[in-house]
Amino acid sequence: MTLPAALVAELSALLGEGWRTDEITRTANGGDDSRRHALPDAVALPRTREQVVALVRACRAHRVPIVARGAGTATTGAAVPTQGGVVVSFARMDRVLEVRAADRCAVVEPGVRNGALQAALQPHGLFWPPDPSSFESCTVGGNLATNAGGPRAVKYGATRDNVLGLVAVTGTGELIRVGGAYTKCSSGFDLTRLLVGSEGTLALIVEATLKLAPRPQAQAGLRAFYRDAASAAAAVSRLMAQPVVPAMLEFMDRRSLELLRRNGSGVPEAGAMLLVEADGSVEALPDILAALGAAADGDGLIDMDVAQDGIARDKLWAARRALSPALRTIAPGKINEDVVVPASRIPELVAGVEALADACALPIVCFGHAGNGNLHVNILYHPDDADESARAQAALPRVFALALSLGGALSGEHGIGLSKRAFMADAFDAATLEAMRAVKRALDPDGILNPGKLLPD
Amino acid sequence: MTLPAALVAELSALLGEGWRTDEITRTANGGDDSRRHALPDAVALPRTREQVVALVRACRAHRVPIVARGAGTATTGAAVPTQGGVVVSFARMDRVLEVRAADRCAVVEPGVRNGALQAALQPHGLFWPPDPSSFESCTVGGNLATNAGGPRAVKYGATRDNVLGLVAVTGTGELIRVGGAYTKCSSGFDLTRLLVGSEGTLALIVEATLKLAPRPQAQAGLRAFYRDAASAAAAVSRLMAQPVVPAMLEFMDRRSLELLRRNGSGVPEAGAMLLVEADGSVEALPDILAALGAAADGDGLIDMDVAQDGIARDKLWAARRALSPALRTIAPGKINEDVVVPASRIPELVAGVEALADACALPIVCFGHAGNGNLHVNILYHPDDADESARAQAALPRVFALALSLGGALSGEHGIGLSKRAFMADAFDAATLEAMRAVKRALDPDGILNPGKLLPD
Repeated sequence: MTLPAALVAELSALLGEGWRTDEITRTANGGDDSRRHALPDAVALPRTREQVVALVRACRAHRVPIVARGAGTATTGAAVPTQGGVVVSFARMDRVLEVRAADRCAVVEPGVRNGALQAALQPHGLFWPPDPSSFESCTVGGNLATNAGGPRAVKYGATRDNVLGLVAVTGTGELIRVGGAYTKCSSGFDLTRLLVGSEGTLALIVEATLKLAPRPQAQAGLRAFYRDAASAAAAVSRLMAQPVVPAMLEFMDRRSLELLRRNGSGVPEAGAMLLVEADGSVEALPDILAALGAAADGDGLIDMDVAQDGIARDKLWAARRALSPALRTIAPGKINEDVVVPASRIPELVAGVEALADACALPIVCFGHAGNGNLHVNILYHPDDADESARAQAALPRVFALALSLGGALSGEHGIGLSKRAFMADAFDAATLEAMRAVKRALDPDGILNPGKLLPD
Repeated sequence: MTLPAALVAELSALLGEGWRTDEITRTANGGDDSRRHALPDAVALPRTREQVVALVRACRAHRVPIVARGAGTATTGAAVPTQGGVVVSFARMDRVLEVRAADRCAVVEPGVRNGALQAALQPHGLFWPPDPSSFESCTVGGNLATNAGGPRAVKYGATRDNVLGLVAVTGTGELIRVGGAYTKCSSGFDLTRLLVGSEGTLALIVEATLKLAPRPQAQAGLRAFYRDAASAAAAVSRLMAQPVVPAMLEFMDRRSLELLRRNGSGVPEAGAMLLVEADGSVEALPDILAALGAAADGDGLIDMDVAQDGIARDKLWAARRALSPALRTIAPGKINEDVVVPASRIPELVAGVEALADACALPIVCFGHAGNGNLHVNILYHPDDADESARAQAALPRVFALALSLGGALSGEHGIGLSKRAFMADAFDAATLEAMRAVKRALDPDGILNPGKLLPD
């Protein structure tokens, strides 16, 4: 599209050199980690919430699309401006405004990087739980948009569980304020958690009050190998049914372990592995580890290592970290989905994925956040091979159908964006989708906020 | 109002003897614990979700108000049918449909009592965290409607934090299904948490998937007395800043303690008291208690008792339980509000309430859930004394103004209903209220669900 001259004049006056129409900036702000890309007509770099309000009102008057942007680490195309318009980058609204240690919360602008926030919190002995693997580069605003998670979510919750309040600009250009520096509230509709995970389709978040947790004194971990996915999944159920909640509870399937063995990571032959992490006080950790070890033990256990100290623990986690790069050694193409199933259905998910890998003659590797039933299903293929590519694309709907048939959901932490939008009609019935569309119309009546994302047409 | 004959015929045919228009049933379903009362035109007692769908569609066609009802223990008038119409009692939809221990969740109908659910979960070693003091009689549906909490919320969260999915009927009579038996989800708008706390104004919940927690092996507690509210509040901040989260963290002000002393409860002279509870394994509890004791210790501490075993712990909590009945010995009238402030602002809240008590010459007693900054402010008066009643009513807006001036909220667990509706315009700006109204119109376009509640006109 071509932006109306009146709008360009207004936004250029509003934002000064924070209004960019050069091709380099537009190109740099048009893609995300899904490897999709589209050129916006302009990029806005606001410094204040008042600028965001004025910008939304101006774009609304001209029915110009607005796509909010953090660091562009989304894997779903959620940040790609497929209908052109204005990308609003929050790169200049990146301050930690306040750390309120006594209230265990922090007030931040959306552009602050997750890692920078964690660094700012460290001297206070606090952290913000969401820990996506992109934490060094991704922004809190992006975490809010996708309800991002990570391994710690099993104990500490994902983004939605760790937000207390928001200031946001709706699609009508109204500034709304919901929630605050308190952890309990029965006062009005919970728009805070509604906006979290809405992928910039309901409002632009300009400030967030985040719930923090005290940094645990120490961590320790254990690594358990099982005969098969079913016995590992039974151990997951036992681990989640006892009162000591693990701080992380990660799963790797047979193919993940084969891959690690092939790359010399020194893991034994096994059908599945669990990585269990505990945190707590130095005095409490031995008992906590003992409780987790007892729960991990059971039918099908082949071997278990315990890592009490930091070095042993790093070694334990090295295998997990080595896995993503190792996937590339099998095939350069990777479709990485993050389906969710009830934890008790993990064995069926893994068995179903193994059957699918056989049926489509492609390697599919499963690993991830077992405590939340949130597994990363990686379909590996050679993008230059048209037949492999077609088989990989054909496998994708079957992965989603499998997860949904087990009572699960399309995504546990990545979101829907463009890539899973077509599957929303499989995940929700027509009435529920229509209720979501009604909520969308309520907060963005002209449909200018991130059009064409999340909800199907 | 008089119900249209066609509607009566339709609903009577639909519900059979579950359609009641006799005065005894209407009277019994017209009030709540706010001591407000209004007569509905009829009471519906559905047994199935299909009946609820048909009922809402029929009422919508005639623009007849629908008020959802649990056990009527709300303190705000939320369940009172002030505009007549049909009260939908969920008394016959009270089953625990499924306990999925391996997934740590239960699927229930809304009419099940909180206490009955807890009893059903006990053999599985699990519990549902929300623990309002009315737990024996209140229903899960009512807990969902108000986002109910209780002392355990400091560690385990309130209702909204412990719900995974809902099936509900919107104001258009559409059945929607959101969330499920999984603990992590980035798939579509979070209507689950939007409906929680919406007091029956957005949809009627007909089924809920609840997040459960494993029952801790053991509990122990400590009771600490402080010179003044400020030193107790400083201890609250210290307790919340260390990694061992207390399972309960209750506060009592000077007047609460005076009252207990007068009633022979054997507490020392002090300016404030904290009751701190820990839970965990038998082996871990001594360390946990030591950590909590160390955090509770500090400037202004007068005395501290530790209760390791059950009997000593019961004695500790007896004082807390004795408090509510004791309030009645001062004056028969009680306005009990449950404001929330950031935990660091508790001293200012307590000092402000003390000043208000002096200014209006009425006893005001503060106690409650300090870890969440959620204090019950009890204004005591003689309802037969017109002057005292007027002073009590005049004090109420000042309590809310005080909480809001400290960055707090109107209610932490009771909700808004009728009693706090007029104060919503003080708590939220016009744009935010308008956004809430837009969401209300999206899910209940004809405004038939619990009209006149929660949102101001």
